[in-house]
Amino acid sequence: MTTTAARGLFFDDVRSGFSFSTPRLTVTEEAIIGFAQEWDPQPFHLDQMAAQSSVFAGLCGSGLHTTLLTYRLYLQHGLFEGTAVAGLGIDGVRFLHPMRPSDTLQVHGRIKDARLTRHPERGLVVLALQTYNQHGQMLLELQLTLLVQRRTPGSDTV
Amino acid sequence: MTTTAARGLFFDDVRSGFSFSTPRLTVTEEAIIGFAQEWDPQPFHLDQMAAQSSVFAGLCGSGLHTTLLTYRLYLQHGLFEGTAVAGLGIDGVRFLHPMRPSDTLQVHGRIKDARLTRHPERGLVVLALQTYNQHGQMLLELQLTLLVQRRTPGSDTV
Repeated sequence: MTTTAARGLFFDDVRSGFSFSTPRLTVTEEAIIGFAQEWDPQPFHLDQMAAQSSVFAGLCGSGLHTTLLTYRLYLQHGLFEGTAVAGLGIDGVRFLHPMRPSDTLQVHGRIKDARLTRHPERGLVVLALQTYNQHGQMLLELQLTLLVQRRTPGSDTV
Repeated sequence: MTTTAARGLFFDDVRSGFSFSTPRLTVTEEAIIGFAQEWDPQPFHLDQMAAQSSVFAGLCGSGLHTTLLTYRLYLQHGLFEGTAVAGLGIDGVRFLHPMRPSDTLQVHGRIKDARLTRHPERGLVVLALQTYNQHGQMLLELQLTLLVQRRTPGSDTV
């Protein structure tokens, strides 16, 4: 099942296996260097010359940059827009392939688990996200665990 | 064992259990809102009023913001400055307590695992990082896995 939901789902409406794809985004060399200057100032993320002699054999984005772009693309899709209560954690982040300048990213997501909690107004959802570039190479994968609002007598319907 | 290394260690010099503490950093409300506007634009990270009625009962930083500050403090300590070859992944990120405006963060780190790889010039290191605020509350924990340069005939000594 694939959705292009523009508004957030309540916990009651999600099922394990539910899948979705986000909008695409193209990352510039300026964005890669700017992010690295602020958050991860290592030579292979900052400078073409230094990056040539690294294991990456050329400038590549910080894995944390790919992680944040992945998360923002997930948010832009809007799966739990307005119904996400809080994030609990992130597991299994794997930097599988370097993100290069001019790469176009898209995230494919799947509900890996959805279960009730003791709290009557929230359920727990585990999302598996995989980020691909325009060549079909998987750059990154991660699992995001969050609390999502349940539909209650006062809540909006979707 | 505790270090305040200003330059990076080679893989050969680290042992499981080795621990360290980073510099401290105080996060402002402007930084919290600015980060959220760019990366995690949800009401409880953007707006005091909206945050009051959330489970956080007040403005709090994105868990990804706390994650990036944790990573940057680890970099500032310099444990593997110039000897880190590449990051492989991040596991077990847990958002345990909200980061609030004016919180002062410090990260305590420990080498959880260090083992040889098949590649003669690199070893694998798993770092456990825990981030505390000024009240001694643990805001976040995570494990970072990275490749670190081995000391070879041509490498600098530390």
